Formats: sequence, structure tokens, C-alpha cells
Amino acid sequence: MKIKLLDTTLRDGSQGEGITFTVDDKLKIASALDALGIHYIEGGWPYSNPKDVEFFHRSRKIGLKNAKITAFGSTRHKNIKASADKNLRAILAVKPDCACIFGKTWDLHVKYAIRATPQENLDMIYDSVRYLKKRGLEVIYDAEHFFDGYMANPEYALKTLESAVSAGADNITLCDTNGGMLPKNISEILRKVTERILIPLGIHAHNDSDCAVANSLAAVESGCVLVQGTLNGWGERCGNVNLSSIIANINLKLGIECLPAGKLKFLTETSRYICEVANIVPNNRQPYVGHSAFAHKGGIHVSAVARDSSTYEHVAPSSVGNERRILISELSGRANVLLKSGEMNIDFEKDKSSAQKILDLIKNQEKKGYQYEGAEGSFELLVKRQLGKYKKFFNLGGFTVSVQKNMNGVLSSQAVIKIFVAGKEELAAAEGDGPVNALDNALRKALEKFYPKLKYVHLSDFKVRIINPTDGTGAKVRVLIESGDGKSEWTTVGVSENIIEASWQAMVDAIEYKLSKAD
Amino acid sequence: MKIKLLDTTLRDGSQGEGITFTVDDKLKIASALDALGIHYIEGGWPYSNPKDVEFFHRSRKIGLKNAKITAFGSTRHKNIKASADKNLRAILAVKPDCACIFGKTWDLHVKYAIRATPQENLDMIYDSVRYLKKRGLEVIYDAEHFFDGYMANPEYALKTLESAVSAGADNITLCDTNGGMLPKNISEILRKVTERILIPLGIHAHNDSDCAVANSLAAVESGCVLVQGTLNGWGERCGNVNLSSIIANINLKLGIECLPAGKLKFLTETSRYICEVANIVPNNRQPYVGHSAFAHKGGIHVSAVARDSSTYEHVAPSSVGNERRILISELSGRANVLLKSGEMNIDFEKDKSSAQKILDLIKNQEKKGYQYEGAEGSFELLVKRQLGKYKKFFNLGGFTVSVQKNMNGVLSSQAVIKIFVAGKEELAAAEGDGPVNALDNALRKALEKFYPKLKYVHLSDFKVRIINPTDGTGAKVRVLIESGDGKSEWTTVGVSENIIEASWQAMVDAIEYKLSKAD
Repeated sequence: MKIKLLDTTLRDGSQGEGITFTVDDKLKIASALDALGIHYIEGGWPYSNPKDVEFFHRSRKIGLKNAKITAFGSTRHKNIKASADKNLRAILAVKPDCACIFGKTWDLHVKYAIRATPQENLDMIYDSVRYLKKRGLEVIYDAEHFFDGYMANPEYALKTLESAVSAGADNITLCDTNGGMLPKNISEILRKVTERILIPLGIHAHNDSDCAVANSLAAVESGCVLVQGTLNGWGERCGNVNLSSIIANINLKLGIECLPAGKLKFLTETSRYICEVANIVPNNRQPYVGHSAFAHKGGIHVSAVARDSSTYEHVAPSSVGNERRILISELSGRANVLLKSGEMNIDFEKDKSSAQKILDLIKNQEKKGYQYEGAEGSFELLVKRQLGKYKKFFNLGGFTVSVQKNMNGVLSSQAVIKIFVAGKEELAAAEGDGPVNALDNALRKALEKFYPKLKYVHLSDFKVRIINPTDGTGAKVRVLIESGDGKSEWTTVGVSENIIEASWQAMVDAIEYKLSKAD
Repeated sequence: MKIKLLDTTLRDGSQGEGITFTVDDKLKIASALDALGIHYIEGGWPYSNPKDVEFFHRSRKIGLKNAKITAFGSTRHKNIKASADKNLRAILAVKPDCACIFGKTWDLHVKYAIRATPQENLDMIYDSVRYLKKRGLEVIYDAEHFFDGYMANPEYALKTLESAVSAGADNITLCDTNGGMLPKNISEILRKVTERILIPLGIHAHNDSDCAVANSLAAVESGCVLVQGTLNGWGERCGNVNLSSIIANINLKLGIECLPAGKLKFLTETSRYICEVANIVPNNRQPYVGHSAFAHKGGIHVSAVARDSSTYEHVAPSSVGNERRILISELSGRANVLLKSGEMNIDFEKDKSSAQKILDLIKNQEKKGYQYEGAEGSFELLVKRQLGKYKKFFNLGGFTVSVQKNMNGVLSSQAVIKIFVAGKEELAAAEGDGPVNALDNALRKALEKFYPKLKYVHLSDFKVRIINPTDGTGAKVRVLIESGDGKSEWTTVGVSENIIEASWQAMVDAIEYKLSKAD
């Protein structure tokens, strides 16, 4: 593979405003990046963040197939030997496949930020790279502020790189740390760098001048063979370069493969999965992978695209696993419903008007804030209800959920529920960690008597979003519940102004989905 | 002014998914763009959209100072004289200052999309431009699919431009309609175009390959003197080029003025105002003007920026009317806390060890799931509590919140709360749209008796995030509440396994923040 990719969603990405990951989130994202074929996954900075240490330890147990787990750090402190530097030792301690350490390029920063002499900085770079190399690690040296530093003092900037080269660095990555470069700056400076530095080079761009993708492409065309970025462009300030745009451009526009064969079509899915794990609303306008990236609204565009997709599409949406969307179009929508229902083995018995009714119902539900893309359990129930193929498993007699906090701050959550199954009444009460948990416990308790197999069903994920639907009156809550029974998993959705009611809807769908399958 | 700008938010921008404008919205946006100093405002397509006609009529009465109101349209129909073409007549009818009409460049599209001969298309272009010019309009000719068309048949593409030139067009704008070009394509093709076409050229780029800004800059550096785009990058699919990035880059990076003197510092305000009018949530990561564009989270970055802003800022935030923001998180160092507290006029009285204690407390709280980077109200209370500068405004005697659903599906949410203020007990009950709303209503009802100014405080946004979702409904919930009193806004945070308790914490912080300010 000529061009390699380093994804730093878990490190630089987490510096973005509003982005925080649990260790579990990080492991899920690492698995997804590995499955896509990303070569290096920068997992964190073990010295500065203890949570990252746990990630490195657990990442060895999740069976990554391709990616090299990379630990981040800095060059050694000015007055400390490399072998005594806690930051470098922390990298070794987590036993990564690769280390990525950054050092100073810009002479003024050497003087004022780390208060070292120019020679001291060169020694810090050399010693740190050497120390990690000697202990068997692959080492990427990140030259911080490289382009700004080069503009200020080209000769010193190149010397810092040579220091890393002579210490045995495997790759030198040039960073546009402040993100202010334009493509012509990158090309001009790389022309000089490649005359002096003969080991593999990388580029690490930020998007502050809205040119991070073009800057990274300019670097690749000037000889860089490693691109560092984040799959959804998350990162400090305006973000790191959007790696999904880079991947698609390099593959489809420059004609250079940078993912294993057949993986490009999982780009959209991976991008959205990472959003889901991070609970970040995906950017619809994100090039290639965004929900709107191939959405056509203008009347002229819609009819032209129907005849010849090259009229308003620069690449085939399917090449990156995305799809064309015709906004406000009945036809394409009905086709989707038919296709989707076919996947679920639901037959419309040539009754195409049912498909239209279901489409209308979905559009109506979406206006209210429901979303079926990620809630296939609820979608299947909706189709079955519409086709009259749905059986009710219980009726609600009513419930009460209450949360009490006493003057000592002690909390308790209780739910009481009454249900009817085939005419028989059942009353159950339960406590829980919160009102939703209490209601879930009470409902299961009441139903298990009639449907013992519900014992194996567990609620594995619970997501809440505040939404302002297009017909919007007040803010509504959308709850997505993921359930499993050890064999399969399914997701259901509920929407209401009341979070208990939204959770209830998703909870009932989750149970009815299971019972309808078992039936 | 060497480079001129055409904003098409009101025309191409409105083709973006989720973007719709009323005529009033359009007039407000036109005024804002005019005040910023945009040269041309493309208001709509009078023939295709009757709503646009009203805009053109009313736009003459709002007293625009600089901008030329521009009407969009296409070249005449194949079989109709220009003077009989309804689309061209509709442009004249709305009496714009300028007309922008698009025509076909790509020989294949001429054949298959409009089913004309190559010569017929050249005549259509000539006649249409000539017709509008003769009637005294300034005319911009938009060459649709120019770059794709040039790649397919360079000679024919250039002939279409020459047709517009000989008819007297004032400007020829080259469109990357599908948005798939890379900067090198633009530069290479423009080198050829500028040899043959000697009248002023423009660029109209879309962002499908995430290179629209770089493509437009490449065009400017190759001789284009007009840039078409939308101030927030809205538009069909992935959007048009982001004009605010273009404006800032051209001014600050290329050193060419494209706005009247002193206007650049209104860029951020104008961008956000347009979002507000369009009811679109601003993109925080938008370069230059985004809320996060100069936000610093990493500890190293924060302490470095405090000493020398050039370390992590490519331009001064104030140059575009934006501001630096210091975020507080587990990635922060002591410098973040000191700087942030300074912003709040909290003085540590040289007691630096308090800063370390606060930082430790924050890290500990973040481990529990709290997040302070978006919750400045709670952060301020946390600092004050730690410094002993905090006064309690009330004590809780207890609350009960309950949600009932009866067998007919009717929902009700009620809360009962007891508080003590200076020894006096107050009991209140309230209903609400959901349990959180009911509790909020009851708390305010109880407190307003003692603190009447709370009447003006309202809850304006409510965000929920599940933190460790793998535990099912027992997972922790983080609630962020945004409150306002008409003058300022503040955000507070709460975390618990119980959503009612998490909401309660954020609610109490919101009220105490307001009371501590008023105190």
C-alpha cells in the first residue's frame, strides 16, 4: 500500500470541543477503524491521561487484525535523561506497536515555550527517538508547527528533522499544528524538505483555514506517504483533517489505494458508527459520507440525475457506501420500503399500495421525530402492524413511576404497573436505579409470568436525544433502546415530550419484537 | 477592490437539505450581507420560484448600500427567441441590478440533457446574454459543469465561453457544479482558459471533494476576480464554498482586500446572524467564525497560548470578530483553571494550590461523568465552593416526582417539593410536560416567593447524554441545561444514574448561578 493512514480520533480527536470517550467507546472505535483497514490507531497519551493506560491494556484483548496501536507522547524533558523521562517510560509501559512523539521545530518556541537552547532541543529529539527505537518500537516523529517553523527559520527546522532521522525514526510527519497553511505553502516547503529528508514522510493537518484536505493532498502529491487525521474531522478548534474525505479522494481521484481492497464501501457506515458511539450528531453535509452528500433537492437536478448520474454526482454514492437520496420524492421512497421489507422477509403480496401507505406513515412519524434508520426493530413492527400481521401480547392497565429524594439526599425510584394478558390481570412493582430502570424492571416482572423466555432478554444500550422535529411545537425526546438475548440484537425507538413515555414506547417495542420473533 | 464576492445563500444555499427561507428571512439576510460589504447578492430564480419575485420587489425598499441585487436564470429555451423566453423575461421583470444566467458547457449534456446541437447551444448562450445586456443589465455568465466539460472536450467548452464574451457578458464564472475537482485541476485548466478568455472571470465551487475553499483560492491565484459562494457554506449536497473562509483567507493569507475597510471584524457576527434567521444550528467547528474555532482544551495548548498566541492560533480571533475560549476538561492543566477563573473575575489571591485542588476536583468529577467545558455556570459554582466564596440559597426538604399513564394511555407528570429558605419552609406542587418539567415548575414555584427575580429565568435548552451505555437503563446520565434571563445565558451540568437526579443537579446549579450573580 503506497499511502498509509493514521487515525487520531482517540487522541487529537478527543481534544475537540464536546468530544469525550469512555474506555469502552475507545475500544469500539478502535475495532471499527481496524475493520475499515486503517493502518495506525493513535489511542492516547498514556502519560498525560491515566484513562488512556486502561485503553492500551484492553486494546490487546479485542483482536485487532490490521491496525498498529500507537501511543502518543513528547520528546524528553530538557533536564532529564530519556531513560528517566516519565512520559517516554509511560509509552513503553503500555507496550504499543508504534510510538508517535512530537518535538519542537520552531526556534522561537524552543526559546520561549520550552526554554531550551537550539542544540538542547536537537538533543531532546535525538535522545527520545533513539530511546524508543532501541527498545524495539516503530517510531513516528511528529514535527510540531513544522510549516510555521520552516517559514521562520528553514535551516533550523530541517535540522530538527535530521536529528530524528539520525536517531532512526521510521517516519517523520510534518504538522500544520495551527492549521493556517494553504496548499501552495505545503507544496513549496515540501519541495525543499524532500531534497534533504529521504526517509518516509507524513502530513498532519488541521482545518483552521478550511484547507486541511487540500493541504494533505498537496503533501501526498509532494511525496508524503502517511496521512494523519480523524475519520470525521474531529479535533482541537476547527478539527483535524477529515480522514474520510482523504481516503475517498486518494482512492477515487488520485487513483491510489489506501485501504485494503473492498473496504472503501464501508466508509460511510464506519463514519456513522463512530458518531453513534461518541453520541455526536453526524454532519449531514460531510463530503462523501454525509446523509446529504448525495441528496438532490432542486427539480432540475432530480430529473437529470435520474437520467444520468454524472450530471450532478462527482462519484457513485455506492463507491463509499453512501446512497443517493431524492428529497421529497415518493418513488424512491417506495422503492426503499419495498427493499427494506424484502430484507426482513415481509412480502407485500404484490399489494404495492401498502408500500405507499407505509411510506406515508414513516414520513408522518419522521415529522414527529421518530427515526427508523437505526431502529429496525420498531420499523419491522410498524410494517407488520400496517399489514395486519401483528399480534398484541399484552394490554396496559396503567403505570405509575415515581422518584423521591429525601432531605438527606437519599434517592429512590419505584414503578407500579398493571397489565392484562389474555384477560388475566397482573400487578407488579419494582425499584430501579432511576425511573426508566424501575419501569423496565416492573414490566419484565409482570410479563415473565406469561412469557418466561423474556428472562434472557436484556437491555444493552439506551440513548437519549433531544430533538426539534420539523412540525415542532416543544422539544421532544427520542429514546433508542438496544436489546439482546445473547443470540441477536435489535433496536427500537420511542418519541415523546415526556422521557418516561418515550422510553416506554421503545421498551414495549423491544419486548414485542422479541415475542413476535419467538412466536 | 481586486476580488469581488457573490453570495448565493438565498438561491443555491436554499437548495441545501433543511434550508428554507421566508421572504422576510431573505430580506434580513440580504441586509446583513450588504452591511458586511458583499458585492453581489443572488436573491433567487424569479421564473422557477414565485416567492423569489416578491423578494426582488421588496429588496428595493430595504435601502441596500453596496450590494447589487442579482437575479438567477438560465439561457433561453432551444426553440424560443430570447425575447419570448419566459425565464429571461422574468429576470427583466424583477428589475435586478445584475443577472446571472447559466448555460451548458459539457458537449454530452448539450446532446442528452437539452437535446440540442453544439451550435444551437452556442446560439442560446449568445442570444441570452445579448438580450439581457441590450436591456442595460450587468450580466454574469455561469458556465455550468465547466471543469468536467473542459476535461471531456476542451475546445467546445472554450467556445461556449467565447459565445458569452462576444455577446458582451461582463463576467464569466466557471462552475464546478458537481464539486468533484481538486485544486490542481482548477489551476491547470485556468492556465488554458486565461490564454483565450480576456474578460473578468469568476469561480463557483461546491464542496463534494472537501476542497471547495482551496479550489476557489487556486482560481483566485490563477486570475479569477469574482468568488461565488454562501457565507456559511450551505447549498445542494455538501454545500457551496464557504464564503466566510474565502473572505478571511483572501484578506489575511493572500493579503488582498475583498471587503470594505473595517468590515472583516463583523464576519463572525454576520455568519451567526444568518444561522439565527435560518434557524440552523451554527457549525461550531466552522473555520474562523465557529464557536470552537479558537477554543483550546489541551493543557499544553492553553498554557502556551496564554504566553504567546501564535503558538496555537493561526490568526488573531479578533481579526474576524471571534474570540478565544479556554475549555475546562480532564485534558486541561492548571493554566486552564487560572485563565478561566480570571475570565470570571475570580481571584486566587496568589494561592496557586487552590488551582491545583480545583483541577484535581475537576478530574475527579469528570471521571464520574461531569463535563465542564460546556457548563460554565457549574464550573463557576464549583470554583466558588472550593474557595469558600459560595452561599447556599435554599435547602431541600425532599421531593417526589411521578409520572402516571392510565389504561387509556393518558399521561400526567406531577412534582411535589419542600424547601427551606432561612428557616422558613415552603411546600409546592406542579405539573409539567414530563417529570423534569414538572420538577422544574415546582422548584421555581417554591423559590419565587423568596427570590422574585427568578421569574425572568427560563430554561432554554436541555441535553441528555448516556455516559456508559453498556449497563442498559442503569447507565449514568449527563444532563446539560441552558438557562437565560433575557440578558445572558449560562449552562449547568448534572450527572447521576437517575435522570431526575441529574436534571435536579443541573437545575439547582442554574438557579444558584443566577442568584449568586444577582447577589
